[in-house]
Amino acid sequence: MEFLVGSVWAAGLAIGIAAFGCGIGQGLGLSGAMSGISRNPEAAGKIQVNMLIGLAMIESLCIYALVVALILMYAHPALKGAIAALGGH
Amino acid sequence: MEFLVGSVWAAGLAIGIAAFGCGIGQGLGLSGAMSGISRNPEAAGKIQVNMLIGLAMIESLCIYALVVALILMYAHPALKGAIAALGGH
Amino acid sequence: MEFLVGSVWAAGLAIGIAAFGCGIGQGLGLSGAMSGISRNPEAAGKIQVNMLIGLAMIESLCIYALVVALILMYAHPALKGAIAALGGH
Amino acid sequence: MEFLVGSVWAAGLAIGIAAFGCGIGQGLGLSGAMSGISRNPEAAGKIQVNMLIGLAMIESLCIYALVVALILMYAHPALKGAIAALGGH
Amino acid sequence: MEFLVGSVWAAGLAIGIAAFGCGIGQGLGLSGAMSGISRNPEAAGKIQVNMLIGLAMIESLCIYALVVALILMYAHPALKGAIAALGGH
Amino acid sequence: MEFLVGSVWAAGLAIGIAAFGCGIGQGLGLSGAMSGISRNPEAAGKIQVNMLIGLAMIESLCIYALVVALILMYAHPALKGAIAALGGH
Amino acid sequence: MEFLVGSVWAAGLAIGIAAFGCGIGQGLGLSGAMSGISRNPEAAGKIQVNMLIGLAMIESLCIYALVVALILMYAHPALKGAIAALGGH
Amino acid sequence: MEFLVGSVWAAGLAIGIAAFGCGIGQGLGLSGAMSGISRNPEAAGKIQVNMLIGLAMIESLCIYALVVALILMYAHPALKGAIAALGGH
Amino acid sequence: MEFLVGSVWAAGLAIGIAAFGCGIGQGLGLSGAMSGISRNPEAAGKIQVNMLIGLAMIESLCIYALVVALILMYAHPALKGAIAALGGH
Amino acid sequence: MEFLVGSVWAAGLAIGIAAFGCGIGQGLGLSGAMSGISRNPEAAGKIQVNMLIGLAMIESLCIYALVVALILMYAHPALKGAIAALGGH
Amino acid sequence: MEFLVGSVWAAGLAIGIAAFGCGIGQGLGLSGAMSGISRNPEAAGKIQVNMLIGLAMIESLCIYALVVALILMYAHPALKGAIAALGGH
Amino acid sequence: MEFLVGSVWAAGLAIGIAAFGCGIGQGLGLSGAMSGISRNPEAAGKIQVNMLIGLAMIESLCIYALVVALILMYAHPALKGAIAALGGH
Amino acid sequence: MEFLVGSVWAAGLAIGIAAFGCGIGQGLGLSGAMSGISRNPEAAGKIQVNMLIGLAMIESLCIYALVVALILMYAHPALKGAIAALGGH
Amino acid sequence: MEFLVGSVWAAGLAIGIAAFGCGIGQGLGLSGAMSGISRNPEAAGKIQVNMLIGLAMIESLCIYALVVALILMYAHPALKGAIAALGGH
Repeated sequence: MEFLVGSVWAAGLAIGIAAFGCGIGQGLGLSGAMSGISRNPEAAGKIQVNMLIGLAMIESLCIYALVVALILMYAHPALKGAIAALGGH
Repeated sequence: MEFLVGSVWAAGLAIGIAAFGCGIGQGLGLSGAMSGISRNPEAAGKIQVNMLIGLAMIESLCIYALVVALILMYAHPALKGAIAALGGH
Repeated sequence: MEFLVGSVWAAGLAIGIAAFGCGIGQGLGLSGAMSGISRNPEAAGKIQVNMLIGLAMIESLCIYALVVALILMYAHPALKGAIAALGGH
Repeated sequence: MEFLVGSVWAAGLAIGIAAFGCGIGQGLGLSGAMSGISRNPEAAGKIQVNMLIGLAMIESLCIYALVVALILMYAHPALKGAIAALGGH
Repeated sequence: MEFLVGSVWAAGLAIGIAAFGCGIGQGLGLSGAMSGISRNPEAAGKIQVNMLIGLAMIESLCIYALVVALILMYAHPALKGAIAALGGH
Repeated sequence: MEFLVGSVWAAGLAIGIAAFGCGIGQGLGLSGAMSGISRNPEAAGKIQVNMLIGLAMIESLCIYALVVALILMYAHPALKGAIAALGGH
Repeated sequence: MEFLVGSVWAAGLAIGIAAFGCGIGQGLGLSGAMSGISRNPEAAGKIQVNMLIGLAMIESLCIYALVVALILMYAHPALKGAIAALGGH
Repeated sequence: MEFLVGSVWAAGLAIGIAAFGCGIGQGLGLSGAMSGISRNPEAAGKIQVNMLIGLAMIESLCIYALVVALILMYAHPALKGAIAALGGH
Repeated sequence: MEFLVGSVWAAGLAIGIAAFGCGIGQGLGLSGAMSGISRNPEAAGKIQVNMLIGLAMIESLCIYALVVALILMYAHPALKGAIAALGGH
Repeated sequence: MEFLVGSVWAAGLAIGIAAFGCGIGQGLGLSGAMSGISRNPEAAGKIQVNMLIGLAMIESLCIYALVVALILMYAHPALKGAIAALGGH
Repeated sequence: MEFLVGSVWAAGLAIGIAAFGCGIGQGLGLSGAMSGISRNPEAAGKIQVNMLIGLAMIESLCIYALVVALILMYAHPALKGAIAALGGH
Repeated sequence: MEFLVGSVWAAGLAIGIAAFGCGIGQGLGLSGAMSGISRNPEAAGKIQVNMLIGLAMIESLCIYALVVALILMYAHPALKGAIAALGGH
Repeated sequence: MEFLVGSVWAAGLAIGIAAFGCGIGQGLGLSGAMSGISRNPEAAGKIQVNMLIGLAMIESLCIYALVVALILMYAHPALKGAIAALGGH
Repeated sequence: MEFLVGSVWAAGLAIGIAAFGCGIGQGLGLSGAMSGISRNPEAAGKIQVNMLIGLAMIESLCIYALVVALILMYAHPALKGAIAALGGH
């Protein structure tokens, strides 16, 4: 049942590595936004809107990885056969 | 029972790596916010609100990984069969 | 069924690594944009347009990886045979 | 009993890597807060409150990993069977 | 069928690593452009044109990797034989 | 007795990696505090209090890892069986 | 048929790693050019010409790797024999 | 006697990696303190006290790892059995 | 036929790693040149000449690697024998 | 006699990695002290005292690793048995 | 014929890693020279001469690696025997 | 005779890694000292004395590793038996 | 004949890694020299002399590695026996 | 004859890694010295003397590694037996 082993490893690493990078990325963006608001509080509205757009786009990257991880765990076409084979093992 | 081994490894690494990256990311954002408040304390309200939004979004990335880790440990469709097989081993 | 194992590993790592890098990249771009708007709020419109173009191009890089990951999981020409072989194993 | 080996490895690495990253993250945030207070001691109250919020959120990331590590060591559904099997080995 | 395993691994890593680097590269370029426009909004037109040229060239690097990945999955001269061999396995 | 091998490895790496990261984190925080006190010695009291809070929180991260390491060495539920098995080997 | 496995791995990694580095390199160059144009828009023509020369030279590095990857996939002198051997396997 | 091998490896790596990170951390803190004293020699007393507190806390992290290393070498509950087994081998 | 496997791996990694480093190197040089021209457009001629010399020298490093890769694929003295052996396998 | 192999590896790596990190740490501290003395030579006495305290603490970290390495080579409780076993091999 | 495999691997990695480092090194030097000429165009002659000396010395490092790679491929004393052995395999 | 293999590996890596880190550390310290002397040549005496103290302490770290390497090669208690065993092999 | 394999690997990696580091080191030194000459062209003579001394010392480090690589390929005392053994294989 | 393999690997890596680190270290020191002379040419004599002391100390680190490498290749106590054993193999 190496297939199942591979799929859970891949799912775990995919979401882990993606969250790693996106977390740093969002941190960089957030850091820039914080500095921006403090330097020019009147622009806080515009900064907030753009920050949310940017964070959402980074979030989407991580969600792609989450989707792949969920597919690997629940919806991969070979999963059923593998679990059945495990059952009848 | 390699499947169980793989799933616990994947769960541990997923949450570990994700927490690693998100921790640094939140640290970067927090650092920026701290500098911001000290430079312009009157903008502290706006900065705090946006900081919380940003930290929450980074937190969410790590929670995705936590969810995947929990699924790998409790809810993966192949888990039951594997534990049963372990019992009847 | 090593082929299936390899394809799920590859799918997971492809999207994970790509999201990692693109997340940091978008974070760098976002950070620059945030600083830019705060320094010169009147240029916010131009900055926003260009930021979106740039983020979209980085997003596209990650989507390439997502496409490859999906192909590896659903549309690779050898996948059918492998799943069938798994079924009749 | 590879399962037990895998779970203790995963538990150790999960908490180790998470503490690694969160430690650096908290250090970055703390560093920013220290600079902030020295530049503007009157804002120390606001900075302290926000610093605590931020550190607590980073702490939470590490606690997720701790929870996963504890589950892997005490509450994983396959653990009982594995220990019993080890006993009756 | 190690060949198929190798080709899917290679395809996944090629696009993943390429997207990683190009994503950071585009982020650096985008960050520079954002700063540039905010400092000198009147030069926004020239900056935008050159930014697009640069991003397109970085994009092209990633597309080379995408092309290689697609070749590895669909058009490699040894692929047909390998899939046939898998079928008649 | 692979279980015992795994648990001592995991214990060693957990505390080692955690101390690595927390050491750097505390160093960053300490560095910021030192700069802060020298720039504004009158704020030394506030800085010291907050520095201690921050260092304590980073310390706690490392203590989580220490706790996990100690559990792995003394209190893991499978440890007794494994040592007994080793004795009766 | 390890040769084919090796050649597809090598092709994938060659283009992947090369695109990684060249992407960052072009990003650095692009970032410098963007800053340059904004600081001195009148020099935009000269900067653009030199930027294109530089990006083209970095592009050429990646194309070398692409050429090697294509040779490995289509024109390596041992490839024919290997595919034939795979067919008659 | 793999257990003994694992425990000495783990002991060595634990103290090695911990000393690595804490050494850099203390260096960062020391560097900040040195700059601080030179900028404001009158605050040298306060800086020295806080520097010692900070260095001591980083030292404690490394001592945790040292304790774990010593336990692994002298006090691990499975050590006696393993050495006896080695003797009667 | 491990020799052929080794030579294609080596060829791919040689050009890949070399292009990686040279790409970053050329990017650094290009970035410096861009900043230089914008700061002092009148020196653009001298800068351009020297930039081309520098980029050409970095290019030459990568071409060395390309030459080695091509030798490994086409002109290595052991290649003929290996291919012949593959044919008569 | 894998135990002896493991212990010499562990001893070598422990002191090597520890010296690596502590060397960089001492370098950072030294660098800060040098800058400090040049900026404010009158504070050289205080800086020297604190620099020595700091360097000594970093030195102590490395000495912990040295102690562990020496224990692994001379005083580990399982060492005698292992050497005797080697002699009577 | 592991010797041939080892020698081609070593040749490829030697030139690849050397070109990697020297490429970055030349890029750093070139970047410094470019900045230098733009800041002080009248010193361009001296800078150019020294830049060429420096780049040539870095180039020489890479050529050492190239020489070693060529020796490994053409002139290693054990190469003839190995190729002959391959022929008579 | 794996013990001898392990000891030479460990000796080589110990001194290699230690020299790596200490070399960078001494370089950092030296760099700081050079800047210091140029900024304030009158403090050159004090800087030189402290620089030598610092470099000597870093040197000592590397000498610890050298001592361990020499012990591993000449004075390890198990070495004699291993060499004798090699002779009587 | 693993000895020959090991020696060519070691020779290739030794010169490759050494050239990598020394290339970056010389680049750093060259970069500093270039900046120095442009800032103060009248000191170009002194800078050039010292730059050459420094580059020569870095060059010497790489030549040590080259010497070791050549010894490994031509003059190692065990080489003759190994080649002879290969011939009489 | 794994011992000989291990010793040549260790010799190569020891000198390679040491040269890597010391090269970067000397580069840092050289860079600082170059900047120093250009800023204050009158202090060139003092800077040169101290630079040479510093570079010589870094050089010594690398020479330690060279000595270890030479011992591993020529003077290790087990070397003779191993070569003799190789001859009589």
